[in-house]
Amino acid sequence: MERYFDEELTKLKQKLLRMAGLVEESIELAVAGLKEQKDEPALEVINREKEVNQLDVEIDEACLRLLALRQPMAGDLRFITSAMKIGVDLERMGDLAVNIAERAIELNKVPLIKPLIDIPRMAKMAQTMVRDALNAFINRDDLLARDVCCRDDEVDSLNDQIFRELLTYMMQDPATIQRAVGLILVGRHLERIADHATNIGEDVIYLVKGKTIKHNIDSQRSSVCGDT
Amino acid sequence: MERYFDEELTKLKQKLLRMAGLVEESIELAVAGLKEQKDEPALEVINREKEVNQLDVEIDEACLRLLALRQPMAGDLRFITSAMKIGVDLERMGDLAVNIAERAIELNKVPLIKPLIDIPRMAKMAQTMVRDALNAFINRDDLLARDVCCRDDEVDSLNDQIFRELLTYMMQDPATIQRAVGLILVGRHLERIADHATNIGEDVIYLVKGKTIKHNIDSQRSSVCGDT
Repeated sequence: MERYFDEELTKLKQKLLRMAGLVEESIELAVAGLKEQKDEPALEVINREKEVNQLDVEIDEACLRLLALRQPMAGDLRFITSAMKIGVDLERMGDLAVNIAERAIELNKVPLIKPLIDIPRMAKMAQTMVRDALNAFINRDDLLARDVCCRDDEVDSLNDQIFRELLTYMMQDPATIQRAVGLILVGRHLERIADHATNIGEDVIYLVKGKTIKHNIDSQRSSVCGDT
Repeated sequence: MERYFDEELTKLKQKLLRMAGLVEESIELAVAGLKEQKDEPALEVINREKEVNQLDVEIDEACLRLLALRQPMAGDLRFITSAMKIGVDLERMGDLAVNIAERAIELNKVPLIKPLIDIPRMAKMAQTMVRDALNAFINRDDLLARDVCCRDDEVDSLNDQIFRELLTYMMQDPATIQRAVGLILVGRHLERIADHATNIGEDVIYLVKGKTIKHNIDSQRSSVCGDT
């Protein structure tokens, strides 16, 4: 029984890592489609969504089986309910990658304003946050989890900068409006992906430390994240 | 023990309803701040966020207690894990209401393009979806839950309409850009609130019917939602 439980737990972790890997790749492909003005990578993201969704359902069912199988101890209980929530966060990130892909296909019909630099940078930050958040969860590494939470501020400020810059473009040249608005929305999608990674980071800290830093992360950040 | 379990379950339901009520009011206040160009209602939303967040933590802890207390049967188990997820959805909706409130305060400094009609309409739809989704959960009413999921399409199409209209305004008169972009983002926030309500609706259908309609809702919709 014990062994069966451990095996199921291992399978659950593998599924979560596989799902996170898919989401990471989807973000990369979606932004590549946008940057290189090619539809293929974006279409690939839309194609892969099914697999992400399938994993979401499988993770949910695996967690329910583990909970039903036996009354898990406090630590395992929290691990399994965190895994459920992380599955939901990953699924939403997958949706956001699809949103970016759809927007890329739309924007590929409109001329570029200038080569994209900051959005791919932001995408890379978000991808790394997803990977690190999952690794923090699997390894119960609260320091890495805190680091993920801190990086959310950098993503937010990069997004604000992109937003302001695009507003300026539009005001100077109304011909750029459609593309600029599209890019503003892509920025929001990426910001939201980083938010989901941060949610996972907060869950991990709760898991390891047994106390929530959600909702007062800012006061925590001042001591944890320093000036970053 | 049984009685204690039932009492805890009742308290959990009350907390969820209270949280949903707060979120509903926050959406209303945030959009009122925007529509009437007054900061007070928007500031009230930001003030109330603490209470929403506190309820989120309490709901999470109540669910963990219920899971730890005894090995719940299949139906109760699914109910409690759904409650956990619903708490997360409500918390995110609360955040989105705060995002709208913050944007309202910012936009109150910029002149109106024209009186707001569609955004308050969309807000009202989102509010009703939140209320109905929660009632569907508490009463295990899968028909009401399906209805909530179907209404998501109406919100999406209203949002698309608002988006296109605002793009046109900007192209005709670049002086409206800042306000129009702000309103586009408010539209997205409301659309996302409706998405969260839909997530709850999907969870309820799973809870009642024992099968997921997530990820293939479109094929379900064709038979369930008809032409709406």
